[in-house]
Amino acid sequence: MTRDTPELVTAGETMALLSPPEPGPLRHARSLDLRVGGAESNLAIGAARLGVRAAWIGRVGDDELGRLVRSTLAGEGVDVSHAVTDPAAPTGLMLKERRAAGVTRVTYYRAGSAGSRLEPADIDPELIASARVLHVTGITPALSESARDAVRLAVEAARAAGVAVSVDFNYRARLWPADAAAKELRRLAEAADVLFATEDEARLVVDAPGAEGLAGALSALGPAEVLIKRGGRGAVAYAQGTVHEVPPYPVDVVDPVGAGDAFGAAYLAELVRGRPVPERLRTAALAGALAVTVPGDWEGLPTRDDLDLIAGGDVRR
Amino acid sequence: MTRDTPELVTAGETMALLSPPEPGPLRHARSLDLRVGGAESNLAIGAARLGVRAAWIGRVGDDELGRLVRSTLAGEGVDVSHAVTDPAAPTGLMLKERRAAGVTRVTYYRAGSAGSRLEPADIDPELIASARVLHVTGITPALSESARDAVRLAVEAARAAGVAVSVDFNYRARLWPADAAAKELRRLAEAADVLFATEDEARLVVDAPGAEGLAGALSALGPAEVLIKRGGRGAVAYAQGTVHEVPPYPVDVVDPVGAGDAFGAAYLAELVRGRPVPERLRTAALAGALAVTVPGDWEGLPTRDDLDLIAGGDVRR
Amino acid sequence: MTRDTPELVTAGETMALLSPPEPGPLRHARSLDLRVGGAESNLAIGAARLGVRAAWIGRVGDDELGRLVRSTLAGEGVDVSHAVTDPAAPTGLMLKERRAAGVTRVTYYRAGSAGSRLEPADIDPELIASARVLHVTGITPALSESARDAVRLAVEAARAAGVAVSVDFNYRARLWPADAAAKELRRLAEAADVLFATEDEARLVVDAPGAEGLAGALSALGPAEVLIKRGGRGAVAYAQGTVHEVPPYPVDVVDPVGAGDAFGAAYLAELVRGRPVPERLRTAALAGALAVTVPGDWEGLPTRDDLDLIAGGDVRR
Amino acid sequence: MTRDTPELVTAGETMALLSPPEPGPLRHARSLDLRVGGAESNLAIGAARLGVRAAWIGRVGDDELGRLVRSTLAGEGVDVSHAVTDPAAPTGLMLKERRAAGVTRVTYYRAGSAGSRLEPADIDPELIASARVLHVTGITPALSESARDAVRLAVEAARAAGVAVSVDFNYRARLWPADAAAKELRRLAEAADVLFATEDEARLVVDAPGAEGLAGALSALGPAEVLIKRGGRGAVAYAQGTVHEVPPYPVDVVDPVGAGDAFGAAYLAELVRGRPVPERLRTAALAGALAVTVPGDWEGLPTRDDLDLIAGGDVRR
Amino acid sequence: MTRDTPELVTAGETMALLSPPEPGPLRHARSLDLRVGGAESNLAIGAARLGVRAAWIGRVGDDELGRLVRSTLAGEGVDVSHAVTDPAAPTGLMLKERRAAGVTRVTYYRAGSAGSRLEPADIDPELIASARVLHVTGITPALSESARDAVRLAVEAARAAGVAVSVDFNYRARLWPADAAAKELRRLAEAADVLFATEDEARLVVDAPGAEGLAGALSALGPAEVLIKRGGRGAVAYAQGTVHEVPPYPVDVVDPVGAGDAFGAAYLAELVRGRPVPERLRTAALAGALAVTVPGDWEGLPTRDDLDLIAGGDVRR
Amino acid sequence: MTRDTPELVTAGETMALLSPPEPGPLRHARSLDLRVGGAESNLAIGAARLGVRAAWIGRVGDDELGRLVRSTLAGEGVDVSHAVTDPAAPTGLMLKERRAAGVTRVTYYRAGSAGSRLEPADIDPELIASARVLHVTGITPALSESARDAVRLAVEAARAAGVAVSVDFNYRARLWPADAAAKELRRLAEAADVLFATEDEARLVVDAPGAEGLAGALSALGPAEVLIKRGGRGAVAYAQGTVHEVPPYPVDVVDPVGAGDAFGAAYLAELVRGRPVPERLRTAALAGALAVTVPGDWEGLPTRDDLDLIAGGDVRR
Repeated sequence: MTRDTPELVTAGETMALLSPPEPGPLRHARSLDLRVGGAESNLAIGAARLGVRAAWIGRVGDDELGRLVRSTLAGEGVDVSHAVTDPAAPTGLMLKERRAAGVTRVTYYRAGSAGSRLEPADIDPELIASARVLHVTGITPALSESARDAVRLAVEAARAAGVAVSVDFNYRARLWPADAAAKELRRLAEAADVLFATEDEARLVVDAPGAEGLAGALSALGPAEVLIKRGGRGAVAYAQGTVHEVPPYPVDVVDPVGAGDAFGAAYLAELVRGRPVPERLRTAALAGALAVTVPGDWEGLPTRDDLDLIAGGDVRR
Repeated sequence: MTRDTPELVTAGETMALLSPPEPGPLRHARSLDLRVGGAESNLAIGAARLGVRAAWIGRVGDDELGRLVRSTLAGEGVDVSHAVTDPAAPTGLMLKERRAAGVTRVTYYRAGSAGSRLEPADIDPELIASARVLHVTGITPALSESARDAVRLAVEAARAAGVAVSVDFNYRARLWPADAAAKELRRLAEAADVLFATEDEARLVVDAPGAEGLAGALSALGPAEVLIKRGGRGAVAYAQGTVHEVPPYPVDVVDPVGAGDAFGAAYLAELVRGRPVPERLRTAALAGALAVTVPGDWEGLPTRDDLDLIAGGDVRR
Repeated sequence: MTRDTPELVTAGETMALLSPPEPGPLRHARSLDLRVGGAESNLAIGAARLGVRAAWIGRVGDDELGRLVRSTLAGEGVDVSHAVTDPAAPTGLMLKERRAAGVTRVTYYRAGSAGSRLEPADIDPELIASARVLHVTGITPALSESARDAVRLAVEAARAAGVAVSVDFNYRARLWPADAAAKELRRLAEAADVLFATEDEARLVVDAPGAEGLAGALSALGPAEVLIKRGGRGAVAYAQGTVHEVPPYPVDVVDPVGAGDAFGAAYLAELVRGRPVPERLRTAALAGALAVTVPGDWEGLPTRDDLDLIAGGDVRR
Repeated sequence: MTRDTPELVTAGETMALLSPPEPGPLRHARSLDLRVGGAESNLAIGAARLGVRAAWIGRVGDDELGRLVRSTLAGEGVDVSHAVTDPAAPTGLMLKERRAAGVTRVTYYRAGSAGSRLEPADIDPELIASARVLHVTGITPALSESARDAVRLAVEAARAAGVAVSVDFNYRARLWPADAAAKELRRLAEAADVLFATEDEARLVVDAPGAEGLAGALSALGPAEVLIKRGGRGAVAYAQGTVHEVPPYPVDVVDPVGAGDAFGAAYLAELVRGRPVPERLRTAALAGALAVTVPGDWEGLPTRDDLDLIAGGDVRR
Repeated sequence: MTRDTPELVTAGETMALLSPPEPGPLRHARSLDLRVGGAESNLAIGAARLGVRAAWIGRVGDDELGRLVRSTLAGEGVDVSHAVTDPAAPTGLMLKERRAAGVTRVTYYRAGSAGSRLEPADIDPELIASARVLHVTGITPALSESARDAVRLAVEAARAAGVAVSVDFNYRARLWPADAAAKELRRLAEAADVLFATEDEARLVVDAPGAEGLAGALSALGPAEVLIKRGGRGAVAYAQGTVHEVPPYPVDVVDPVGAGDAFGAAYLAELVRGRPVPERLRTAALAGALAVTVPGDWEGLPTRDDLDLIAGGDVRR
Repeated sequence: MTRDTPELVTAGETMALLSPPEPGPLRHARSLDLRVGGAESNLAIGAARLGVRAAWIGRVGDDELGRLVRSTLAGEGVDVSHAVTDPAAPTGLMLKERRAAGVTRVTYYRAGSAGSRLEPADIDPELIASARVLHVTGITPALSESARDAVRLAVEAARAAGVAVSVDFNYRARLWPADAAAKELRRLAEAADVLFATEDEARLVVDAPGAEGLAGALSALGPAEVLIKRGGRGAVAYAQGTVHEVPPYPVDVVDPVGAGDAFGAAYLAELVRGRPVPERLRTAALAGALAVTVPGDWEGLPTRDDLDLIAGGDVRR
C-alpha cells in the first residue's frame, strides 16, 4: 500500500450550500453565506481531520460552484482526484434557512444536477478495494437510476474485496417515495458492516420497539454494528451483540445540520484506527456536539488536537 | 365589499430603525442595520402575514427613509395607498441599542417629523367604515395635537360604523407627562372593544390588585376584551367576563422589542377570522415568542405556514 | 378607468439573483448578495419609478425566494396581484459573476422553475386590454411551450384591444437554438409597435448593413418604432420613418447588466406620458447610464426627482 | 505657553454621519456606516494629523452618538476638554447618500440638536487668546442665535488677543436665507485674516468677475489671504496682494465631501508652522486630493509621513 | 493636584487584537475583527468609564497598529501622553480564536514587539507619585528584562510615594517558566496593597487549601486586600482580615476574555472613590459580568449610567 | 513519470495576508480580510490554474494560519505534501494597507516565523529532479541563513538534473542590505535559465542603460531568457538573443501586488507547455493585468477558460 492510498472512500453528491448569516426568514437576508455540503463529503472531511486518508467520488459541473466543491474538499485534505467534472450539467445548490432555533428548512436545486448524474463508470473498484472502509448513504440512490447503480457497484466492489461497508440511511422524503426507499435501504443494510440510522429511518426497514430493539432488528439483517442516532437524546449502539448507551453531550445548538455526519465521521475514524467501540462512541458523541456549535455543516468538526482541547473545556455557549 | 377593502386599518408613525448588529454600546458599532418600525405598522405586517388585509395610514417625508417605509410596508402586503408623503418634514428615525441582553435603549429623532404631523384630514372615515377592526395606540396621541385629533377622529369613525376598535396603550414616558397620558388613555379605553396593556400601563388608568384585577377594572370602562401583557410571564386575558391565563412560550430572547405588537397582530388576526378567544391567545403567544428570536421588530413574525412548522419544533435557540 | 388600472403590463420570469459583492471568481466569494431580477420586472420597476402604473404577470414558487420576488416588486410599486404562486415548482435562481470589469457570467437554475411554467391561463386579457402598453421579451417564449403560448396570447389580447405592443428581443443563446429563436422573434417583431434589439439580435431576423439599416429592416416588418441598442456606443432609433442618433452617456460601469431594461423602461414611461421621441430617447439614455453605476440589475434606476438631480451632475465615478 | 495649549482652536457642530457603504439609493442599503463629521472638527483633525495642537469647542448630547463624537475626536488627538455635554438635547445626525458618482445628497437631523445649542458661555476667551489661529465657519451662525453669538464672541476674543482668524464661508442654503447669510458672512469676512470660499459663496458678499476678481474683492474687506476653492479645477489664492494659481491634483473621487475642510486644514497647519504661501498651497492641494479618495469626511487626511509617501506615488485609483 | 493628574497609572503592553466574528476554527474566517487589547489598558479603560482619571504607560511601534492603540485609548479617555512610540519595533499583535463556547485560544505575535521593549526610562516616577493607585500585572515582567525592570521601578516609585500598589498576577505560561514566574510574582505580591489572582495563580506562590486559605496566605505576604477570582463561581475577597464571598452574576458568556480586567477596574475605581469593600465587590462583579456579554476585551465595560441601567435589568442573553 | 510528479517546483515562505476591505489608513478598518500570500506560492497557483502540476515547499507553524496556508494551496491544486509543519514557530503574517490608489504599504510579522526556518533538509532533490522547472526568488535567501542554503541546494539539484531554473529577483530592501542582496542575486542569476527582474532590481547586479541594456547584461551572466518587468509600462524580454517588447494591458488597478507573480506564472506555464516566447509573453501580460483587478494577491489569476473569455472582453473597470 503506497502512501497515498485512501483508507476511507465515499461517494455521493456535494452541493453549494447557501444560508443566511442570521436566523429568521430567508427572504429578509441581504446576503447568503456560500459554503459547500453533502452528507458523504461532510463525513470524509470529518474523518480526514481525525487523521484518516479519505477520498470522495462524485460529479460537479464545469462551473464556479463545482470548482468551489473541489477546492474546498481538497483544501480539507480529501482526495478529489477521482471526482468527475461533468460539462453537461450544473453543480447542485441548496438553500438552508434557520427559521428559528431548531427549525431548519432546506430547499434543493439539484434536479438534473451534475452530482445526480453519478454513474457506475465513475466508480473505480480498485480504489475501493485498496481502502479500509467504504461509506455510502441512502441519499445517493434516490438521486437517479445511474446514481443508484453506482452505489450498488461500489458496495459490491467493497464486499468482494473484503472492505468494510458503512451505510447511513439518511432518508430524504422529498427525493423518493417511502416504499421505494425502504426497499433500497434494506438492500444497503444487508450489505453493511456498520449502519447508522435514526429511529424513524430504522422503522422504514424493520419493526421493533425502542432504539435497542430497532438496532437489534437491523443487526439481524447483517451489520455487526448498528448506531441509532437520537439527536438531543444521544445514541444507542449495538455492536457485536452488545448494547451501548451514548449519552448526549450538552451543547447550545447553532445549526443542527451535520451532527449525524460528524458522528459517523468520528466513529469510522476510530474504527480505522482500530479503537474499541466505547472509544469510537465517545469520540463520535463529542464530534457530533461540536458540529452543531458553528454555522456550516462541517466547519466545526474537530482535529485530534481539538478533541484534547475541548474535552477539558465546556462547549456550551 | 370589493377584493381590496382592508379588514384591518391602523394609523400611526413608522420610522427608520437603526440598530447595531451586535449587542454592546452603540458607539462601538461601525455600522447600523437599517430597517423600519412602528408599533402600528408592526401590527399591520403581523396581521397581513396571517392572512388579514391590512392598511396603514401615516405620514412619511419626501426622502429616502420615507420611500423605505413605504416600500417595506407595501412589500409586506400592507396597503399604503392611504399614507401621505409630507414634503415639509423628514421621516422620523430611531436608534435602538441592545446594551446587554434584555436591556434595550431607544433614542428617537422624531421631533417635528413627518409622522408626527398626522392630522385629521389624513383619516378617511369611509376606509375605516369598510373594515372589520381599527387599531390605534397610545403613542400617536402623544406625538402632536393634530395626531391626537386624527386618532380621535378615527376612533369615532369606527364606532359610528360599528367597526371594532382595538387599542394598545403603549405608554411612552418620554413623549408626554403621565397625567396627560392617563387622561387620553382612559378616553381610548372607554372607546375600545379590545384593549392591550401592561400592568404598569393599566395602573395609569385604573387601580386594582394583580393582572386579573386590572383587566377587570379596565373592562369595566368599556372593552369586552382586555389583554394584560406580562413579558416573560405570559399574559392574562379578560374576555366577555372570563379570565384566561396565557402561559409564556419559552424562547431565548434576541431582541425583546416587537413582542407586544406581534401578540396583538396575531390576536386580531384570529379575531378577524372569527376564531374563539383561546385560539386567539394561543396564536398570539406563539407570534410574540417568534418576534423576539430575530433582530428587527417584525421580521420574525409568522405566516400561517410558519405556525404549523414551528408548533412542531423548538424555537429556543 | 379606475385609479388602479395599470398603464403598463408585462409578463415573464423573475428570479432570485445571487452575486458576489466584489469582482473576481465567484468561488472566492464568502457570501453572495441576494436580490431579484428579470428583464420584464426590471422594466416594470423602472417604469414605476418614472410614474407609470405597472403590473407584472409571472409565476413564483411557494417558497422564500418567491416571497422575496413578490415583496420586492410590490415594494417598488409594481402591481403583483396578477402573479401566480405555483406550489409545484421552486422559484428560479441565477448566479451572476463579475469575472472582471465588463466580463459578466450568469448561470441559471431555472430548468423546471415556477417561472418557466407560465401558461396562457395566467394571462388576463382584460387586464391587458385596460392598459396602454404591453411589454414582452424574447426570453419568455424560450422557457417552455406553455410560456411561449402565454406570450402569444398576451400579444393577441393587446392587439385585439388596440393596446401598444412593446418587444425586447433579449435573445438568450443558452435557452434555445438560433433558428427556433429567429422564427419566434420574427413573429414577435411583426406584432410589435415598439421593438428593442441589439445589432446581433436584429441580424437573427433581418439582414441589413449598419444599425440604421437594421432598424429600417425591422421596422418594415411592422413596428413603427425600432430601437437598436449599441451598449457603450449609444443607440439608434428609427421612429415613424425618421432616424435618431442617441449618443452614449459617459459612465464608469460597475455592473453592465440591466442597462437595456432601464433604457426600455424609460422609453416606455415617456411614451405612456405622451412625450415625443427625442425626449423619450434622452430619458432612456440617462436611465441606461444610471443602471450600470450600481450593483444590482435595477436598483440604480431613476425617479423623476433623480433625473432632475443627476442631469445637473456628473454620474461618472 | 505650556505643553498642552492648543495652537488652533475651532468651534462648531459635529454630528454622527451615517452613509451607505455603496453608491445608489440610500433606501436599498441594508446597513449604514457610522462615523462622525463636522466642517470644523474635520479641519481640526486634519491639522492635528499634520502636527498642530488643535482644540474643538462644541456641544454633544448625553448619548451614545455624543460619546462617539468625543471619543473619535480625542482619538485623533484633538483636545475635546472644552466641549460641553448637553443633557437636554440629542447629538445631531446626518445621512449622506451617494446617489451616483459626484451626486451626493445629505439629510440633516440637527433641528434642536445639542450642537445647535452652542452659546457664548461655551466659549473660553482665554483658550482662544492662547492659540495661534481661530477657525470658524459660516455653518455655525446659521444654527441658532446663541450659536451665532458664540461665533461672534470667539472672533472678538481672537482679534482682541491678536490671534489670527480663519473663516470658511461654507454656505448652507437649507439652514438660512441667502440675505441673512450674506450679512453674517460679510461680517465674518471683515474680521478674518484668512478666508476660504467657493466662487458661489464669494458672490453672496462681493461682486467681481472670475475667481481672481472675487478673491481681490474679498481681500478688500479685510483678510490678507483669500482662498477661492474651485473643486476639480483647483484653487486661486490671493495673499498679501499676490495671486497664486493652485492646479488641481488629479484623483478618482470616491466621496467629494470633506475636500474643502482638508484643504483648509493643511493650509492652516503650514501657516502655523510658518511656511510660505506656496508651500501652504501645495500641501493644501495634496490633502484635499487625499480626502476624496476614501469614504468618510476626514479619514483619508494625511499625516506628514503620508505626505512624503504619497508625493512619490500616484493617488489616482 | 491639577485637573489632569491621573488617579490611576498603569504600565504594560497593548496589542492589536484580531478575532473572527463567529466561533469556530479561525482558518474558516474570511475576515478578522480589528480591535486592541492588553490587560493593563483594559483595566485603565474600565476605570476611566467609571470616572477615574487613568494613564497608561507603554510602547507602540511607529505603525498603523500603534496609532490604533493610541487613538483607541485616547478615545476612551485614557491619558496616553506618557506612552512611547518606538520606531525600531512593530506593535504587537494577537489572534484570538473562539474554538467553541468557553474554549478560547490566543496566538501572540509579540516577540521583539515595541511593547516588550518597555524599559525603566519610560517610567516617570513623578507621574506615579502624583496618583492614587499604580496597577501592574505579571505579564509585563515576563516580556523582557527591561520590561521587568520597568515594572520594578514603577512599584518602587509608588511605594516610595505612598501610592497604593495593585497587582494582578495574570500568569501566562507561554511567556516564562513557572519557577521564574513564581519568584517574580512573589516579589510583586510582597509589594502590593491590593492583589488579584486566580486559585491556580495563587498556588504558584503560596500553598493553602481553598480560596479563602489562599487569600489569607497571600495576604500574609503583605497586601491588605486579596481578591481570588473564580470565573463562573464568583470571587472571594480577603480584606483587612475579613473574608467576603462574591457570588457570580449569571450571564451567558459571549467572550470570557477580559472579565478579570473588568473586575479589577471596577474594584479599583470604587477604591479610588473611597467606597467600602462590599460596594467595591458589588461593582466589580457586575462589571466582570458585563465584560463577557460582548465581543472584545473591554468594549462592554460599564459607565456609571450603565450600572444604574443594568442593575435593574437582566443581562442574561 | 507518474501522474503525480510535479512539472514545476517552488520553495519559499507563504504567510497569512491581512488587509482592509477598503483603501485608506489601516487603523480605520474595523476588520481585515484574511487570505494567504507569498511570491512563490502565488506563482505556483497561477501556474496550476493554467494546467501545470505545481508543488510548493515551505514551512508553516502548527497553528490555524498554517492550516489556512496548507488548505488554500491544496484547494488551488498545488501539491503541499512536501511542505513542513514546524511546531516550534508561528506562521508568518503580513498586513497590507492600500493607503491610496497605487500606494501600498506592507508590514511583516515574519521574524522567527516558521517559514523563515526553511532549511536544506526540507528540500527533496529527487522531487526537483523529476520536474521541468524550479522557481525561486530573492526573498527566501534573505529570510535566514538556513533558508538561503535551502535555496542554494534546490538550485544545485535542479542544475545537476538538467531542470530549468527560474529566478525572480524580488528584492526586499527591508529584509537585507543592498550589498548582501546584490551578491546573492548575482549568484542566483548566474544559475538561472529564466530570470525576472525590475529595472531597479537589475541595477543591483549589472549596469547598463535602459531595459534592453539591462536585459542583455543580465543574460550575459547566464540566463538565456531575461524578463524586465516595468509595471504600467509593460515588459521587455530578451530571449535567445532577441528583444521582445511586451506592451502593457490597460486595466484599472485595484491592488497592484501580485502582478509580477502572475506574469511569471503564466510565462512559465506556457514554457512548460512548450509554447514559443511571443505566446508566453502574451499570456503573461494578460495574467498580470488580471491579477491587479481584484483584491488579493492571486485570486484573480486566470484559468485557460478565463483567458479565452477575457481576451474577447474588456478588463478595464
